[in-house]
Amino acid sequence: MPYDQKVDIQAERAYSVEKGLQTTLLTETFQGGKEVWARKQEIARIVEQEPVFARQDRYFLGRTERFQRALAISRKFVELRAKHKLNPDEVVIMKNYIDEYFPVHLHESMFLPVLIGQGSDEQHKKWLDDALNYRMLGCYAQTELGHGSNLSGLETTATLDKTTDEWIVNTPHASSGKYWIGSLGCVANVAAVQAKLIIDGKDYGTHPFLVPIRDKETHQTLPGVEIMDIGPKVGANAMDNGYMLLKQVRIPRTNMLMRYARVSREGVYSKPIHNKLAYGAMTLVRVRIVENAANALSRAVTIGTRYCAVRRQGGGQGASGELAVLDYPSVQYRIFTMMAAAYARSLTGRAMMASYNALMEDLRKGDTSKLADVHAYSSGLKSFTSTLAADGIEDIRKCLGGHGYSMFSGIPDYYRTYLPSNTYEGENWLLTQQTARYLLKMYNDAIRSSDPASQLSETTQYLLQLVNPSQFAHQRCSAQSMQDLLNPTVQLTILGHRAASLVAELAQLKTDNVSWSELNIDTYRVSRAHCQFIIAFNFINYLDDKEMRHAFNNVTAQVLKQLCDLFVLFMIEKDLGDHLETGYLTSTHAKWVRQGVKSLLKLIRPHAVSLVDAFGWPDFLLNSALGSYDGDAYKRLISWAKTEPLNQQGIGRDAVGVVQGYHEYIRPILKGELGQYTSKL
Amino acid sequence: MPYDQKVDIQAERAYSVEKGLQTTLLTETFQGGKEVWARKQEIARIVEQEPVFARQDRYFLGRTERFQRALAISRKFVELRAKHKLNPDEVVIMKNYIDEYFPVHLHESMFLPVLIGQGSDEQHKKWLDDALNYRMLGCYAQTELGHGSNLSGLETTATLDKTTDEWIVNTPHASSGKYWIGSLGCVANVAAVQAKLIIDGKDYGTHPFLVPIRDKETHQTLPGVEIMDIGPKVGANAMDNGYMLLKQVRIPRTNMLMRYARVSREGVYSKPIHNKLAYGAMTLVRVRIVENAANALSRAVTIGTRYCAVRRQGGGQGASGELAVLDYPSVQYRIFTMMAAAYARSLTGRAMMASYNALMEDLRKGDTSKLADVHAYSSGLKSFTSTLAADGIEDIRKCLGGHGYSMFSGIPDYYRTYLPSNTYEGENWLLTQQTARYLLKMYNDAIRSSDPASQLSETTQYLLQLVNPSQFAHQRCSAQSMQDLLNPTVQLTILGHRAASLVAELAQLKTDNVSWSELNIDTYRVSRAHCQFIIAFNFINYLDDKEMRHAFNNVTAQVLKQLCDLFVLFMIEKDLGDHLETGYLTSTHAKWVRQGVKSLLKLIRPHAVSLVDAFGWPDFLLNSALGSYDGDAYKRLISWAKTEPLNQQGIGRDAVGVVQGYHEYIRPILKGELGQYTSKL
Repeated sequence: MPYDQKVDIQAERAYSVEKGLQTTLLTETFQGGKEVWARKQEIARIVEQEPVFARQDRYFLGRTERFQRALAISRKFVELRAKHKLNPDEVVIMKNYIDEYFPVHLHESMFLPVLIGQGSDEQHKKWLDDALNYRMLGCYAQTELGHGSNLSGLETTATLDKTTDEWIVNTPHASSGKYWIGSLGCVANVAAVQAKLIIDGKDYGTHPFLVPIRDKETHQTLPGVEIMDIGPKVGANAMDNGYMLLKQVRIPRTNMLMRYARVSREGVYSKPIHNKLAYGAMTLVRVRIVENAANALSRAVTIGTRYCAVRRQGGGQGASGELAVLDYPSVQYRIFTMMAAAYARSLTGRAMMASYNALMEDLRKGDTSKLADVHAYSSGLKSFTSTLAADGIEDIRKCLGGHGYSMFSGIPDYYRTYLPSNTYEGENWLLTQQTARYLLKMYNDAIRSSDPASQLSETTQYLLQLVNPSQFAHQRCSAQSMQDLLNPTVQLTILGHRAASLVAELAQLKTDNVSWSELNIDTYRVSRAHCQFIIAFNFINYLDDKEMRHAFNNVTAQVLKQLCDLFVLFMIEKDLGDHLETGYLTSTHAKWVRQGVKSLLKLIRPHAVSLVDAFGWPDFLLNSALGSYDGDAYKRLISWAKTEPLNQQGIGRDAVGVVQGYHEYIRPILKGELGQYTSKL
Repeated sequence: MPYDQKVDIQAERAYSVEKGLQTTLLTETFQGGKEVWARKQEIARIVEQEPVFARQDRYFLGRTERFQRALAISRKFVELRAKHKLNPDEVVIMKNYIDEYFPVHLHESMFLPVLIGQGSDEQHKKWLDDALNYRMLGCYAQTELGHGSNLSGLETTATLDKTTDEWIVNTPHASSGKYWIGSLGCVANVAAVQAKLIIDGKDYGTHPFLVPIRDKETHQTLPGVEIMDIGPKVGANAMDNGYMLLKQVRIPRTNMLMRYARVSREGVYSKPIHNKLAYGAMTLVRVRIVENAANALSRAVTIGTRYCAVRRQGGGQGASGELAVLDYPSVQYRIFTMMAAAYARSLTGRAMMASYNALMEDLRKGDTSKLADVHAYSSGLKSFTSTLAADGIEDIRKCLGGHGYSMFSGIPDYYRTYLPSNTYEGENWLLTQQTARYLLKMYNDAIRSSDPASQLSETTQYLLQLVNPSQFAHQRCSAQSMQDLLNPTVQLTILGHRAASLVAELAQLKTDNVSWSELNIDTYRVSRAHCQFIIAFNFINYLDDKEMRHAFNNVTAQVLKQLCDLFVLFMIEKDLGDHLETGYLTSTHAKWVRQGVKSLLKLIRPHAVSLVDAFGWPDFLLNSALGSYDGDAYKRLISWAKTEPLNQQGIGRDAVGVVQGYHEYIRPILKGELGQYTSKL
């Protein structure tokens, strides 16, 4: 007799309901509060009602079709934004629910911030209303074919022609053409182009210029502008990433974005007032990446947990039948640690947003003291969380077994579009240089100071123990039992000691004749250690928060504590080599860490389904035959397969149901018309 | 001035030529000898000349188009096989060069082995010539929607009707329909169906039956047979994986494959003579997976090394310009360790094939003594090597930076089709139970024996040290310097000690009331440790081989030794926690391991491009704009982008070059026809 998946998944929920787990409250809390969550659901309904946003057939679309669909999505998005008078936050929410990386998307997330941040007041007056209303569709053209992360290596030039009061924008070589620029391939009609500013042969470095690229009326590319779409990608195929050559294209002098640096009619360049606020913007992008990492991971965790709860396979075939796959410890290990990671990172994203807001407040007042700290940990966390999310999502897909390989599982499509987060805004290995550099500076400042504690930020206080090196070398973890490892203070001390020891090691390696790029492997380790500390720090702080304690009942608070413990012990286990190498942890501690992880998996197991329900993913967004709320995975797999084009008469099959191409290709094989094969086995 | 990539890559090769590295000899040796390599190249040329195998446009094909192409490929493949009178080995070579998972592919790799292995002599007489000549196109139908790896859970039944001398084959529920069956969706006309054999209400377990599923003339599905394609997948979309329901389908009694079990006209079931040879077949599949892991990895390593040698980014901008990305230690770490892994696994694949052949020879003589050992390590190595390959390929793709995200990088498409190796033929975590179980048995046999060494196979001799537990606990690594860690005996002792300690730990955990499935996390660790030992063992043995020493000159032999050292130290470093936990390695050893890895990266760097040339991948197969032999990455990216359908007039663009859909979707946005947006920023 077959198992009933719908019954199985409801039984999972019944347990948490009985115990009093506050699933809804968890959702509301992690979604930003009851009101925000209610508004999100309203916007979700708006999106779900529009046929153009339908997702059922997305998995069947080839690249060209998917791009065409994205154009229709773009139009509908613009229409709904106006119709429902969405504010900027709500626009972001709507984009999240549309869940497609469509051309107009980037106008808002890349082009507008540049225009707003870099344009002068006069320029805002001239262009901003058009830009906000999409009467001008922009893209942000920085990366070149031959140069990505190294801004100073860009080759595109903007040379001032004083006689005509124009810039001549030029891409001198094929490899200096702008490449990967989203929305450039087919849609945008202006580009914010990063180019080396040159006056009278002097190079003033890279600056942004507004360059019209397509005719406002005909949409044809303008003279001197050559553009093509760069072709199919791993994901994000609804986007028209483009390649652009500019051949001596002339634009007015006033098309240079002049909020900071300026060039006068006479060709005089005035230096920018140093723009600390721009660093803030970079930080914000990274905060969003950390939040997205938590989101992307929680999506896979939701699908993985629900499906593995209804998928039964092997094990004891007693009265209750085969085991749910979710009862296998290895599956729990792979999914629940990522569930804990998703909760942990969501809290870190929230903490980052708070410190970003505080930082911006400070910067407006001219106080730059926190800038370096925030910049350093946002770089590290961007790297750490997006790497862990990408790896975790794919590993959860593998936990789904064979069916995880179907696009209908709902993971592969969004995962592919998630992947670039590991390489953009700073490649995840290279980026850690920023973090390590800062930590080394903190360390040096501290050991040279008479009041070292005052030199260190809240999350680098652990460096204080390095002030007395001989004492540091002899420190040992105080935990006397597995239970002690669940003590937050002990946890932070372990993670802090390890991070500190790696900083000290780096300090020895980084002598004057060793360049930072030679220390990439080491900076990656240091940054990772620091980030593990911060994530634990934020989770622990949250659990310690009075408001939180008041809001949740004991069961809920306890489960959150278990998730925190799991993530902390998991991080320690992953890098046990580091912890043992210093002698801070002993073999006995190592065994407790492993045992602790296993015990926590068992504790979380009964609440697993409710804990992923709490992430609040609607079925519409998950678009997963395996992970929908009702658990009806197998029926959904079949009903979705029915819609596969190869199964449709007139598309994949002829009138009698035989596959197209049979007569031309397969029948001659079956009829032996292609020659006799005589080779023996 | 732009760099010349073609010049850069030739400069890389010049160094190895000057030093005398035997690149061609490496290729010939690793490809199975001079003659085999020559024959492979001949077959490559046959494939390259056929337009239907052209690969340039594959990245643009949607699923339906790609499947249609695969039908054409199937036909051409059958034609060429006959025309060139290829022997079975050569057929495999040709399939590798076609490099597409096309429907007819599986007939040979899945259906034929079942027919040959399970069919009786009479059945061979009746069907084999048709099957070998594709006048019968088969698929192998085992997996069901609700059951994958658990064979005993399959629900499809074959019930004997003695009155008509027929089997009634039936899939009782939707979830018992055969699912994921390759070539079933549209192409195959017979299926080897695994079903529970039932006579007079008695269930005799799962057996294979030959079930005609499509009409020989019309290709329509036969009465009672319902089939559909299961839809789009992560990869392998040229294959028509299918779902099949069988509604009381009747087949002759003699369509049960009767080489082993038999059922007579009277309905009497005769037990099979135990079929040890069948275990051999399972082993062969895993040997192939290990070989494929080496291949798949070497392909990404080739692309990664070549592109990172010509991609320059940041670093010192002195006389020689920016640094090649391949000069960054972190990039070397990620690519060269995988290069070493590819060499190591290729050697392990070769050693496995040799022991597989020896095993089959033994089995034919009735000697089953080596069966368990080969079965155990082939299971573990399947898991270990395919996991490392999948993770490694994706990580190398990330090393390519932004351009790695383009399909033109050549990695994503084949990676997607490679991925299922992690889940089929035993999911990579679950499978390790086989290995751990065997090791535990060896351990128990050894400690209870008066002559423990005689109980242990060549690659489990390391368990001998557990016979004296107190002595074992006090063993310490003898290495007194970093140099000592390059001593092969020291290396094997380290890996052996660690594997032994995990087996001993498992022995403590596995008491009678603990089931194997509860120990999944632990079996994974044990199996991994055992496999690391075996791979190192095989590489070290190869380097010690007289014939090898005679064939290669000193430079070549030295580089191979460096690759071996790198892989060994890399494996130790990855799991340092285990090595430190037992106290066998000290903190000082740990530092030497890390330093050793870094030094080896520097030693391998100058030969890197030649070492990937030696893998022998033709440009045609790599199909990579970034990794082609001549290094001309950027020009190739552009010329391939030009062929993107969105750039073609009549497909993606209209007659004046404006994207299709502009007038309907984008113009109304730009003209402000969709409502005014009033929200403030």
